Amino acid sequence: MTQNGSIKIGVIGGGQLARMMVPPAIHLGLRISVLAESEGASAERAADVVGDYRDAETVYAFAETVDVITFDHEHVPQSILHELVSRGVAVHPRPDALQYAQDKIVMREKLAELGVPIPDWTAAADETDLQAFLDAHGGRAVVKTARGGYDGKGVRVISDAAEVRDWFTALAEDGNGGSLLVEELVDFVRELSQLVARRPSGETCTWPVVETIQRDGVCAEVLAPAPTDRAEVLERAAGIGAIVAEGVDVTGVLAVEMFETRDGRVLVNELAMRPHNSGHFSIEGSVTSQFEQHLRAVADLPLGDTSMTAPAAVMVNVLGGPAEGPMPVRYAEALAAHPRAKFHSYDKQPRPGRKVGHVTVTGEQLDVVRAEAIAAAQHFE
Amino acid sequence: MTQNGSIKIGVIGGGQLARMMVPPAIHLGLRISVLAESEGASAERAADVVGDYRDAETVYAFAETVDVITFDHEHVPQSILHELVSRGVAVHPRPDALQYAQDKIVMREKLAELGVPIPDWTAAADETDLQAFLDAHGGRAVVKTARGGYDGKGVRVISDAAEVRDWFTALAEDGNGGSLLVEELVDFVRELSQLVARRPSGETCTWPVVETIQRDGVCAEVLAPAPTDRAEVLERAAGIGAIVAEGVDVTGVLAVEMFETRDGRVLVNELAMRPHNSGHFSIEGSVTSQFEQHLRAVADLPLGDTSMTAPAAVMVNVLGGPAEGPMPVRYAEALAAHPRAKFHSYDKQPRPGRKVGHVTVTGEQLDVVRAEAIAAAQHFE
Repeated sequence: MTQNGSIKIGVIGGGQLARMMVPPAIHLGLRISVLAESEGASAERAADVVGDYRDAETVYAFAETVDVITFDHEHVPQSILHELVSRGVAVHPRPDALQYAQDKIVMREKLAELGVPIPDWTAAADETDLQAFLDAHGGRAVVKTARGGYDGKGVRVISDAAEVRDWFTALAEDGNGGSLLVEELVDFVRELSQLVARRPSGETCTWPVVETIQRDGVCAEVLAPAPTDRAEVLERAAGIGAIVAEGVDVTGVLAVEMFETRDGRVLVNELAMRPHNSGHFSIEGSVTSQFEQHLRAVADLPLGDTSMTAPAAVMVNVLGGPAEGPMPVRYAEALAAHPRAKFHSYDKQPRPGRKVGHVTVTGEQLDVVRAEAIAAAQHFE
Repeated sequence: MTQNGSIKIGVIGGGQLARMMVPPAIHLGLRISVLAESEGASAERAADVVGDYRDAETVYAFAETVDVITFDHEHVPQSILHELVSRGVAVHPRPDALQYAQDKIVMREKLAELGVPIPDWTAAADETDLQAFLDAHGGRAVVKTARGGYDGKGVRVISDAAEVRDWFTALAEDGNGGSLLVEELVDFVRELSQLVARRPSGETCTWPVVETIQRDGVCAEVLAPAPTDRAEVLERAAGIGAIVAEGVDVTGVLAVEMFETRDGRVLVNELAMRPHNSGHFSIEGSVTSQFEQHLRAVADLPLGDTSMTAPAAVMVNVLGGPAEGPMPVRYAEALAAHPRAKFHSYDKQPRPGRKVGHVTVTGEQLDVVRAEAIAAAQHFE
């Protein structure tokens, strides 16, 4: 607790997720402090400390200045996380939960144990294992590195085991051994995401299931709630989200990304144990945003209402192009053309394909709202 | 402009208004910097500079670090403001507009010139002037110091000129002379407020007229939009707001506080040239909040839509009591009991009657929303 009785939340990682935790911290009057990787990070405003999250002493010193530790990303080593816990630091999500977001093979093992539907998979230690899986699944598969992938990085669709020889070589050279995750190529009609927030006490809260639209492996749009004429599919997705949140004992916000298959099945694809791109719509679209809820959850405060503020909300990501300035240099035209759109700039230098911001529009009709959000985001592309 | 092309807004004053400008600055990716009076100010997070706004060199040095200067309060001396303008600094609102919020007598003269309805008034230089006004207005009047009053401070209802002898004495000792503002005691049924935002280019935008409920001279509740069975009264109030905004050439957000009299007249009471307590509802209740709009306006960016996000929004202020901690110490019970309420803590040490935060609830029905907001705020009283 700070001198005035406020709870101080420490966030490891200075990206846009940490950045977007700052506004609700200001409104609620919770103190927030960020351990950023570098000067000029997206969450610079709250970045009291700049240092390497892989350096144990840097993290321990940061933890001594706050009441609870949480994360902008999942990359803090387990050894550091466990040492924090053994020193009595409140860490949310806890290391035993966070491991499922750190290692995709550990995640698949856990999901299988929980009995939720997932794509056929195996952990392939070498090309022989991988070729056997390919042969049994029509000659094609998705291969993922177990650690470190995001936004389509570390994911390849292959039809020959040799196509990931470089990854096997890297694993062998790494000296720790390890395997690649191999999954069947799912024939999905769309992707869904269920956001769940959970307090250490167990109180759980969900938002409506949303549809996520990816392009080139990167989230492009989120439609909230997911439009459907099969409500039963969304109920199933919500049920899976609840089982996973409870099963992995998450604290904070969890995103469960899922496939809806052509034959009406719902399969879990990925987990993220933090606020997630599929929940950015909630800043304007929900009574309580995922960022406010994450702060409440990790501070073990009662969770807020997650009803929609309007029948429809659509979020469209803004990706950096080859030679653009940051979003505000286009504001004169973009804001004038779209007075109802809410613009979010992460204050990042644009690079091709890099998420530099997003736009959200809320309203009565999904198709109208979506067209507006897409048009507003196009000013920056 | 900063290195990455963002606009940097400098706010003089570190109170809750500056504090609440920070979240929309983060979302829009505009840089914000605050010149605060002291360490531990409400807007501490963005307070890069601590210093005295009455010290010219402090203000000039601060202005050199930003693209535009705006304000959390109206107390910066005119001499400093004019020097900033002569040095080429963008100052919004401009000094010539800000004077109307700095001196209530200058404001009354301007309102009279604009022809908008105001209470009968005079500038009383001494007790003789004041007694003459009292005699002509049924023996009672409201007396206000021309400068420095807020939240009921510097306002007295009197029936004898001797009741403000101390104020006349202080004015005489001040050496600058000056008068007290005297006004008829208006028989009003309620108070209304019209928020207006205006860009340097002249683009103007208004929110729905709201009803403000005062207790002990301090704003207690705001009902948005103002409930009425006389839409014509609200139209008149909106029209007055538009005339005033244009007439005083304001840039940024202006609040026009008005009385609705028993006989259906609308009279202007006060002006505030900054985001205002009567607009806090807009954080959740409007597509574009007064804080975001103020940033857009002073940065000369296109203004956002000011539609309500729900049919009704009610804001209730939280005032400090004699022996309470800050709002977060009561969050365990308050948040659990009111999951739909949005809590705002200004991170201030509570003192009796001091505004330390507010609660807003939005929804379909005003009476339901209002009851919820009042109940949520009562957890802190």
